Amino acid sequence: MAIAFELLATDGAARRGRLTTPHGVVETPVFMPVGTAATVKGLTPAQVLDLDARILLGNTYHLALRPTAELIAELGGLHRFMNWPRALLTDSGGYQVFSLAQQRRITDQGVAFRSHIDGALLELTPERAVQIQELLGADIAMCLDECPSSVAEEGAIRAALRRTLLWAERCRAAHRRPDQALFGIVQGGLSIALREQCAQALMRLDFPGYALGGFSVGEPTEQMLAVLGAAAAVLPANKPRYLMGVGTPRDLIEGVARGIDMFDCVLPTRNGRNAFAFTSRGTVKLRNSPHRRDPEPLDPACGCYTCRHFSRAYLHHLFNADEMLGPTLVSLHNLAFYLGLMAQMRTAIAERRFAAWREEQLALLEAATPAAD
Amino acid sequence: MAIAFELLATDGAARRGRLTTPHGVVETPVFMPVGTAATVKGLTPAQVLDLDARILLGNTYHLALRPTAELIAELGGLHRFMNWPRALLTDSGGYQVFSLAQQRRITDQGVAFRSHIDGALLELTPERAVQIQELLGADIAMCLDECPSSVAEEGAIRAALRRTLLWAERCRAAHRRPDQALFGIVQGGLSIALREQCAQALMRLDFPGYALGGFSVGEPTEQMLAVLGAAAAVLPANKPRYLMGVGTPRDLIEGVARGIDMFDCVLPTRNGRNAFAFTSRGTVKLRNSPHRRDPEPLDPACGCYTCRHFSRAYLHHLFNADEMLGPTLVSLHNLAFYLGLMAQMRTAIAERRFAAWREEQLALLEAATPAAD
Repeated sequence: MAIAFELLATDGAARRGRLTTPHGVVETPVFMPVGTAATVKGLTPAQVLDLDARILLGNTYHLALRPTAELIAELGGLHRFMNWPRALLTDSGGYQVFSLAQQRRITDQGVAFRSHIDGALLELTPERAVQIQELLGADIAMCLDECPSSVAEEGAIRAALRRTLLWAERCRAAHRRPDQALFGIVQGGLSIALREQCAQALMRLDFPGYALGGFSVGEPTEQMLAVLGAAAAVLPANKPRYLMGVGTPRDLIEGVARGIDMFDCVLPTRNGRNAFAFTSRGTVKLRNSPHRRDPEPLDPACGCYTCRHFSRAYLHHLFNADEMLGPTLVSLHNLAFYLGLMAQMRTAIAERRFAAWREEQLALLEAATPAAD
Repeated sequence: MAIAFELLATDGAARRGRLTTPHGVVETPVFMPVGTAATVKGLTPAQVLDLDARILLGNTYHLALRPTAELIAELGGLHRFMNWPRALLTDSGGYQVFSLAQQRRITDQGVAFRSHIDGALLELTPERAVQIQELLGADIAMCLDECPSSVAEEGAIRAALRRTLLWAERCRAAHRRPDQALFGIVQGGLSIALREQCAQALMRLDFPGYALGGFSVGEPTEQMLAVLGAAAAVLPANKPRYLMGVGTPRDLIEGVARGIDMFDCVLPTRNGRNAFAFTSRGTVKLRNSPHRRDPEPLDPACGCYTCRHFSRAYLHHLFNADEMLGPTLVSLHNLAFYLGLMAQMRTAIAERRFAAWREEQLALLEAATPAAD
């Protein structure tokens, strides 16, 4: 087995676990910073290591187009290419079935994309998605799935589910690499019954981990939480559960409360590049003028490099002057905030006080709307 | 005295010195990375410290416009604002008299700029240039000067020289801050006689250091070198000599050979942002296609973070994908290369083998035109 998952403690549905990979141990619940194109945008691997991130995410679709999986394999694989010594997970391209809906054609055979870069054709079959991911060599690969829109009709959801299961079977059959784990992806839209049906069918294929896909694609948060709680409950207790592409700090807390172990999301880095910070006292928009002369750190409760060394006034200046260091420093802080939140959750679960911690944190997030924003 | 300068060794005209400032010791000859808007573009101060840079340059014109010198003073001064614990030097805005020639009006009273940001009026008199620099609080401030174009007629060069001396006197009279040294700036275009005349006049004002301005503004390198050698020779041996805004690796070597102690230039960072690297084997354009599958480091002879951890293929990919990490990693390497070159020169002078080192290095730079470029 490429990976091992150990459940260390539970507190309600929340789980404290440990995922052992060929590239080190990942304490769960975990947040995975996104490194779409073989880089966490704006940060050196040394800075990401400094945050004690244990696992990053890369993207099949983007890397297959540029610089190609074959080139990365020739250069020693994704870990070496991007100089990331710890664990990696690669997404399969299934999410782009949804996000690039205008630029793809999908059949049972696979999905054909028009490149967002130059219009070139990229064909992903389940077999090719697995092959690309084996070339990239992440510790965890994902099955190719069809991610339907949250507003799709039930017929379309059922069709995507059927195809996702068909593809999961073909991915499972195609996958060879012994030092890589292949996770199945549960689809089914916002129907608890379809989600359960999908999860049960995937479990018969016995994957070493399961993901919940097709959430946070436009539906109300409450609806997402209800369905993912029910879907997570069906999954085997001894396997890791990964909620794909989610989400806000509140989503992470609510996901953990429903038994999720792994998360990824572009929010901390994408928002960081746009001067939007997550802090223990709520969100902060650093471009806003009240920050112009503010000598305080971004988050006085945070011990990250940014908060230890720079004022909000300096960060405001960097964005105002369009200096690269602004995106770097706020991305760094936002990741520190996300990783810190996960660390707090791991401790709270281990100490069996997660419910109280969650209530307190959600109240804080609710209350926190700084005057400056 | 805010600074002390000690001459440790000479080798021909080349000088090995030590500049002691209120923010630490600067071994000379030294290269000062440029931090125009209170940041070395693309790098954190921690990364710049890691390169062992001892002194950075900031810009009066840019900082006066944004975020303003008054705000930086209110926030504790430029060192604290940008979190740079070592020495700083600020330029006076004199260079913008040349580079923003279309947007300024100049009289004996001073110079009025139209902001490149929003067209607002910025008036710099000698007194105001000193005041701004005292508010910024760098260890070394520069007199306001008039930098003429290298193709100006002799009459215009003489007029700029006269005004530069008039302003130097007024700057000297206006300067109060005891923990800051004020340097005079020698102008005089490409006339050795005018340069000598300007230097002599400034020396009567007894500045703690002297700069050579108005070089590398379009004239042929050979002409610059002949004039700066003659001008440097006039300056007192016991004061630091700073060649402003210069230059290429070859310029640095030739400048040191002519008795220059301090340099600054945007080339390592500006070129770094554009995928153009300086290496021990010549320049490398990382966007060029032969680098696409090159597993070698940017410069095998370099021990910087970039060269220790990443392939040329990865750097090529980062620029190709327009990822911020490309500019960061190549800026970092280019600065390491420049600072390393200065360190080699310091050692060669101390060991009285500078002439041989220089000959060898210039031959290497001459020969080095990698096939890939």
